Amino acid sequence: MEIPVVRNVLEANEKDAALLRERFAAQKILVLNLISSPGAGKTSLLERTLRDLGPELRMAVIEGDLKTDNDARRVAATGAEAVQINTDGGCHLNSKLVAEALTKLNLDNLDILFIENVGNLVCPVEFDLGEDAKVALLSVPEGDDKPEKYPLLFNLAQCMVLNKTDLLDYVDFDLERARRFARRLNKNLEIFEVSCRTGAGLNAWYAWLKAMRKAKQAR
Amino acid sequence: MEIPVVRNVLEANEKDAALLRERFAAQKILVLNLISSPGAGKTSLLERTLRDLGPELRMAVIEGDLKTDNDARRVAATGAEAVQINTDGGCHLNSKLVAEALTKLNLDNLDILFIENVGNLVCPVEFDLGEDAKVALLSVPEGDDKPEKYPLLFNLAQCMVLNKTDLLDYVDFDLERARRFARRLNKNLEIFEVSCRTGAGLNAWYAWLKAMRKAKQAR
Repeated sequence: MEIPVVRNVLEANEKDAALLRERFAAQKILVLNLISSPGAGKTSLLERTLRDLGPELRMAVIEGDLKTDNDARRVAATGAEAVQINTDGGCHLNSKLVAEALTKLNLDNLDILFIENVGNLVCPVEFDLGEDAKVALLSVPEGDDKPEKYPLLFNLAQCMVLNKTDLLDYVDFDLERARRFARRLNKNLEIFEVSCRTGAGLNAWYAWLKAMRKAKQAR
Repeated sequence: MEIPVVRNVLEANEKDAALLRERFAAQKILVLNLISSPGAGKTSLLERTLRDLGPELRMAVIEGDLKTDNDARRVAATGAEAVQINTDGGCHLNSKLVAEALTKLNLDNLDILFIENVGNLVCPVEFDLGEDAKVALLSVPEGDDKPEKYPLLFNLAQCMVLNKTDLLDYVDFDLERARRFARRLNKNLEIFEVSCRTGAGLNAWYAWLKAMRKAKQAR
């Protein structure tokens, strides 16, 4: 009973996503869909990135949350443009919600649009938002077994940002095991080991962002 | 379009849940539905609890995961009976899956059945599993803002286990803020501050479990 309906919802989303993708291509905007568990550090990664790359690149953010505009306010404090979507209990963003949010953003000369999805390792993965790449965040305290237990995200993501490496000394987390599980699902997965708290490792992430943006502009 | 279908799915689940609830009542089994983000420590809490209370109480576990039977194996290593449900990508357990799992468990003289839901702060909250109480887990590294951002779980749960308190010194987490947000959603919420790593605070959780179990047996 449930399956055909889910398929209809996904098919409708695919159509909306195709429209978004055309639009982002025409304007040469790099679009990244950030997906993780609640509290893995998506907003913290954006705060750092917007501050550090703000002088070089024009970036904006769509924030997805069930409730509150806390994250949009945190992001806006960096000076970047931010729009909050409240899903009112919904477990993921879809392309229709993103299209609505776009009406509130100035897309002219935008280099990168970050879409911070609802904190959820499962549902957001199946909903294409017209993005160039999904960025999976995993944080050290969640455990090294998460790629194995929630495989679809790590299979579909273009990169994994492994955050909170400053906590490695205080928890049982085997970096090698996390890398191995993730690469078994996706042999081309780029992995960035960072601490948004200390700033460690962020330069490699920034280099990737700039390379991705350059490739998009050249297309 | 989507709403009536979601309602049908929820209504079908309510009927299955009512059957489970009758059965658990007849056998006087206390049933707890554990819900949290991925990696908050549901399995670790169960491992500790099963070891520490195993001599006094007969307990069994239903483990819900998208993939793998890692958690059922961890739990079974304590000596408790455990059944794994793989949702194969599904974001929550439902009562039908629980009813199927029950056919593989010996319910005679069982004191407590723990149901460890899929790691997800959103979707599992709406699916009644015939439980006596939902137990919300929150872990310190996820941040003190999570009750405010994911309110439904903290509103409906009977208690919140705040895990990984051993990491309080290494992250920005305001205990008072987390408690305040959670109690604003649910003024009767019991809060247990624990570290499954060190064992700190677990005695209050155990006392609550024993009191809940006694109340169930007396009904």
